[in-house]
Amino acid sequence: MIVRGAPAIGIAAAFGLALAAYRLAAAGPSSTEALLHELRAAAARLAATRPTAVNLSWALETSLGLLGDALGGAAAAARLEAIALAIWRDDVARCQAIGEHGAALIPDGATVLTHCNAGALATGGHGTALGVIRSAIAQGKRVRVVADETRPFLQGARLTAWELLRDGIDVTVIPDGAAAHLMARGQITCAIVGADRIAASADTANKIGTLGVALAAHAHGLPFLVAAPLSTVDLATARGGDVPIEERPPTEVAEIMGIRMTPPSTPVVNPAFDVTPARLITAIVTEAGVFRPPWTNFPEQIRSTGRKILTV
Amino acid sequence: MIVRGAPAIGIAAAFGLALAAYRLAAAGPSSTEALLHELRAAAARLAATRPTAVNLSWALETSLGLLGDALGGAAAAARLEAIALAIWRDDVARCQAIGEHGAALIPDGATVLTHCNAGALATGGHGTALGVIRSAIAQGKRVRVVADETRPFLQGARLTAWELLRDGIDVTVIPDGAAAHLMARGQITCAIVGADRIAASADTANKIGTLGVALAAHAHGLPFLVAAPLSTVDLATARGGDVPIEERPPTEVAEIMGIRMTPPSTPVVNPAFDVTPARLITAIVTEAGVFRPPWTNFPEQIRSTGRKILTV
Repeated sequence: MIVRGAPAIGIAAAFGLALAAYRLAAAGPSSTEALLHELRAAAARLAATRPTAVNLSWALETSLGLLGDALGGAAAAARLEAIALAIWRDDVARCQAIGEHGAALIPDGATVLTHCNAGALATGGHGTALGVIRSAIAQGKRVRVVADETRPFLQGARLTAWELLRDGIDVTVIPDGAAAHLMARGQITCAIVGADRIAASADTANKIGTLGVALAAHAHGLPFLVAAPLSTVDLATARGGDVPIEERPPTEVAEIMGIRMTPPSTPVVNPAFDVTPARLITAIVTEAGVFRPPWTNFPEQIRSTGRKILTV
Repeated sequence: MIVRGAPAIGIAAAFGLALAAYRLAAAGPSSTEALLHELRAAAARLAATRPTAVNLSWALETSLGLLGDALGGAAAAARLEAIALAIWRDDVARCQAIGEHGAALIPDGATVLTHCNAGALATGGHGTALGVIRSAIAQGKRVRVVADETRPFLQGARLTAWELLRDGIDVTVIPDGAAAHLMARGQITCAIVGADRIAASADTANKIGTLGVALAAHAHGLPFLVAAPLSTVDLATARGGDVPIEERPPTEVAEIMGIRMTPPSTPVVNPAFDVTPARLITAIVTEAGVFRPPWTNFPEQIRSTGRKILTV
C-alpha cells in the first residue's frame, strides 16, 4: 500500500521491472534467453503483488512487449527505464484527456462526491476522478468536493484531502456512512470515482465502498461517473463477478495507526475492492472519450478506439 | 457519548433527574413549586444534551409525570430514583419482548448484518437489534453476525463485537463500505438495526450509515428490519425530514484516539444520524409486536397498542 491507485501501480511496476533489469545487468553478462527468463520471473513477482488492478499486468506486458529481444543486459535495463518513463508520461497525458472529456459532465456549482483517491497520488499526475474535477475547475467552473474518508485505509481523509487542499480546491471529508445522507438531503450533485478494473460488461471493480456510493447515487437519481484510462478496461474479464477481489489483512481494520480498535481476537474481513454493476453507472470517462449505456455495445466501442498503442 | 444508544440515553436521563432531585434535597428545604421549577430546569438541561433520540424526552416526561406534585425534596428524590429503576427494568422487559417478536424473522442459519450498537450496551439490557439475535439464538437457531465497524465512533467494532464475543456469538467486523459488497456476494441474509426516532410515517432515524445499509439491502432484495421500543416511536414527528439530526464535532472523524488522520484544517462534516425512509423498511419490531407495510396504517396501529403505561 506504499504504491496504490491502479495507474500508479502500473507505472511503479514498469519502473520495478527496469530496476530488476539493472540488477541483472550489474550481476554480469548472461545470454539473451537467460535475461528474458529472469525478466519474466521479475514481472511475474510484480504481477502477483496485487490481483485486482489490471493496469499492473498491462504495464508489465507493455514493457516486455516493447523491450524486443535483441538486447544485452545494460541496454535492456536502459530500454525498460525509457519504457517506464514513457508509461508514466503517457499516463499523465491520458489523465489530462480524461479530465477534458469528463469536465463536460460536471455542472458549474456542482458538489461532487468522490470515494478513495483517484487523484495525482494514484496516477502519473492530474488524476482520473480528481483529474475530471481539476479540469472542470480549470475551465472556470465552481466545484466543491465531498471526500469519503474511505475506511479502512483512509485514502480519502488523507490523500484526497491533502492533494485537493494543496491545489486550493474546496474539499470536505465525511465518514463513508454519511454519503447516502448527504445525497438524501440534496447536498450532492453527482459522484465520480476511479476504477481498478472495468470488465467487458462495464461492471467496474474499485475500492471497497464504491458499490454503496453507486447504489445511493442511483436511489437518489444522481449521476454516478467512473473515470479511468483505457488500460483499466479488461475485455478478457467478461463481467464483474470474474474480477478477483483482493482480501487484505484484518489488522488494517482492527488497528488504526497501531492502536487496536476491536476487542482481542475479533474476526475481521477486509475485502479491498467491490464491483459496481454496469446498470448503476451513468458514464465511463476515458482518454478516448465518454462511454454510456447501453453497455451491451461497450466492448465493441472500446475495440473501435484502437487503444492507442504506446510508442517509445 | 459516554452514554449512547437511545434506550440507554433515556434510562440515564431518568437517573440524572433523580440525582438532580437528591442534590436539591441536600441543599435544604424548598417549596414544592420551587422544587418542581428546579426539576423542570434539570430535565430541560438533560433533554438538550442530545437532539435526535426521542427516548430521552420520553423518559424525562415520564419521570416528571409519575412524580406527582405533593412531595418534599427527599421524598421526590426517592420517588424519581424508583421511577428511574422502573424505567430501567421496564426497558429490559421490553427488549426481551422485542427479542421474542423479532426472533421469528431470523431464519435458522442466517448471517445478520447490523450497524452501530443496538445491544445490551445501548439499552437496559439484552438489546433491541442484538436482542432479536440473542433471542433467535436462545431458540436454538444458528445465527452469525456481521457488524459494520460504524465510523466515526466505531460502536460496531468496539461495542457490538465486545458484547457478542462475550456471549459466545459468532461475530465478524467489517468496514462500513464492505456491507454492500457482502450483500452482492450473497453472504448476508438480512439486516437489523436499532432506531433513535421513528416518525409517524415510519421513517426511521438511526446512526449515520444506516440509510446506506437500507439502500443496499433493498437493492439486493434482503429484509431490512428495525428493532426498537415503542418509546422510540414519535407520532408527533410526521416524517423523517422533521427529525433534527445532531451534528457532532469534526474531531470525531479527523482524529482517532487522539491521532490526526486528515491534513491540518481539513473541513469535516459529521452528522450523527440519518433517516431511512419507510419504503426501505421490511418490518419494525417492537415489544408490542411486529409492524409491516403499508406504513399508512402505522400511526393507527401504534395508537391501538395502547402503549402500556409504565407503573411504579
